[in-house]
Amino acid sequence: MAEAPGAAMSGFDPASLKLRRAGRLTMGNGEDEITEWFARHSKLSASKFPIGIGDDMAEIRLSRDTSSLRSRSVCFGGVGSVLITTDMLLDGVHFDLKEVTLKQVGYKAMAVSLSDCAAMATVPIAAVVSVALPKGFGKRQLKQLHSGITFAGDRFGCPLIGGDITRWRTSERFAINVAMLSKSVGNKPVRRSGAKAGDAICVTGSLGGSRWGRYMKFEPRVKEARKIAQLVAVNAMIDISDGLSSDLNRICRASGVGAVIEAQRIPVSNAARKSKTPLESALNDGEDFELLFTLSQRQCRRLLERWDEPLAITRIGTIAKARRLRIKRLDGRLDVLQPKGYDHLREW
Amino acid sequence: MAEAPGAAMSGFDPASLKLRRAGRLTMGNGEDEITEWFARHSKLSASKFPIGIGDDMAEIRLSRDTSSLRSRSVCFGGVGSVLITTDMLLDGVHFDLKEVTLKQVGYKAMAVSLSDCAAMATVPIAAVVSVALPKGFGKRQLKQLHSGITFAGDRFGCPLIGGDITRWRTSERFAINVAMLSKSVGNKPVRRSGAKAGDAICVTGSLGGSRWGRYMKFEPRVKEARKIAQLVAVNAMIDISDGLSSDLNRICRASGVGAVIEAQRIPVSNAARKSKTPLESALNDGEDFELLFTLSQRQCRRLLERWDEPLAITRIGTIAKARRLRIKRLDGRLDVLQPKGYDHLREW
Repeated sequence: MAEAPGAAMSGFDPASLKLRRAGRLTMGNGEDEITEWFARHSKLSASKFPIGIGDDMAEIRLSRDTSSLRSRSVCFGGVGSVLITTDMLLDGVHFDLKEVTLKQVGYKAMAVSLSDCAAMATVPIAAVVSVALPKGFGKRQLKQLHSGITFAGDRFGCPLIGGDITRWRTSERFAINVAMLSKSVGNKPVRRSGAKAGDAICVTGSLGGSRWGRYMKFEPRVKEARKIAQLVAVNAMIDISDGLSSDLNRICRASGVGAVIEAQRIPVSNAARKSKTPLESALNDGEDFELLFTLSQRQCRRLLERWDEPLAITRIGTIAKARRLRIKRLDGRLDVLQPKGYDHLREW
Repeated sequence: MAEAPGAAMSGFDPASLKLRRAGRLTMGNGEDEITEWFARHSKLSASKFPIGIGDDMAEIRLSRDTSSLRSRSVCFGGVGSVLITTDMLLDGVHFDLKEVTLKQVGYKAMAVSLSDCAAMATVPIAAVVSVALPKGFGKRQLKQLHSGITFAGDRFGCPLIGGDITRWRTSERFAINVAMLSKSVGNKPVRRSGAKAGDAICVTGSLGGSRWGRYMKFEPRVKEARKIAQLVAVNAMIDISDGLSSDLNRICRASGVGAVIEAQRIPVSNAARKSKTPLESALNDGEDFELLFTLSQRQCRRLLERWDEPLAITRIGTIAKARRLRIKRLDGRLDVLQPKGYDHLREW
């Protein structure tokens, strides 16, 4: 979400930088430079880590323990893989404990990571949670937090299996980190980097105005993402955490392509319609946690024909060869679309 | 580490509560009650999660994607498992940025999790790191931190594969979380709960006085733990993060046994000898990150005969049937040994 005055006033700030996100962005702002730097400095074996820094989750290929030869001979390719994501949420940044409950915070902390699992079209397995408690936090607060964590965990079959509790000695604020594992079942993990010129660009649900409540209680699109990936061949996918414009930019940069989206097709949420600039809100607000994905025109038609879930899927544009983002305004004019979503490190 | 005045003065505080630690402790202090509470409220499938809340790492059994039947028929037991740990370290608690460098902090954050991998006698695979940056932290600070993370990662074959960077809006302090994956190769993960009456109790290295420097630069005993577990049958193991007395108590409670250790056999470190009470320091200081393990007398003899690594292994006592900890003083007197190691939540 852009750092609009409203965002600052509400004491709410959306998703933070993911090191995993986006490959080679050229905008030169803080978040992207840092992401690039970390990706460039990782020397990961592609066979061990099919997906490394620069996506919603990293993938680890696990070779079986072949110290006993018994299994190796009969089990060619006896390997599986697991994916992992990590997310830190801070009081005063991602939520404000003066305005929301710890149960809501527990839910949100899980939901942000569950949304990463959705972005890869993978199945959540389990989570470990670390917290840094302010002075004065006791068992009551931990239980409230736990109830939010398990509410989300139960709902998505993703139990809490471990954690770490630390406590500030000084008057610092609450922080929570969720690390979550997932696996691919029935479809490969969907990356950001597979978008092709000519692809249709689609989003689920409606966008913008998350700060008016949705940011604490959004539904991660885990089920829908897997259903999409199993109905059709999806070329690229991401969850909209920092705003449509920024997350579309990430898909495009990672895929070496551009995009044209149509203003009239953007599904603007009711919450965004309350703002003075509803379209800008839908383009640049963060924390929608809807899916943004690309697929061939043919696969897109097939998907829209077969889709029978209540959650809307809207085709909003087309992937282009030229590496730039553009938006077709209501009057037919083609404007450059700036990635104006939230950037945690922009002011550096 | 006990909250001795020295610890507070040095601005240093050792390892924090692990939810994963210890099964049913009866001391009724904060850390143990909370751990119990979380373990009691987890309803984990033992087949999916062979090790859940209450150990140094949790274990997740991965079934292969059997959506294609091709492999299932020829690959009975085509499953692997992966282990995970998470650790949050805070400025002003686990280190003080006025006294140490960010490179040291990056190293320590990784080393704490690597020590968890060692405690299970598993092989580290990969790490994801989240940070909460104070105002004023920029790329220079991130690069320093990164150099410490990769120094540890390169050394132990455990690359950084993803992360999350967030930034405080207010004047809060630096926090870092490492979540790390490991796997078992050639030996099963060693749990805390397998100690048997009559077992020998052993420790690696020497104990106490970590606050005088070791707490930032200790060597996780990854290699040694695996070597021990492959030379002999180890019944229970833990890394000494909160102090020998507390971590031995955890093994005993998880295993439903007690222990007698001998004061004269405790390997007191040179740093601990500088304190006024060297033995107490070796018993109760935290952040030694040495291995504490139990095994049958026969296996112990075998281990000590065959052990050819520079790191010392010392037999310090015997597991007893009666569920209490005792220490044989130099004069032969048997005293109760209180678990006086560090408890992050004791004052609750």
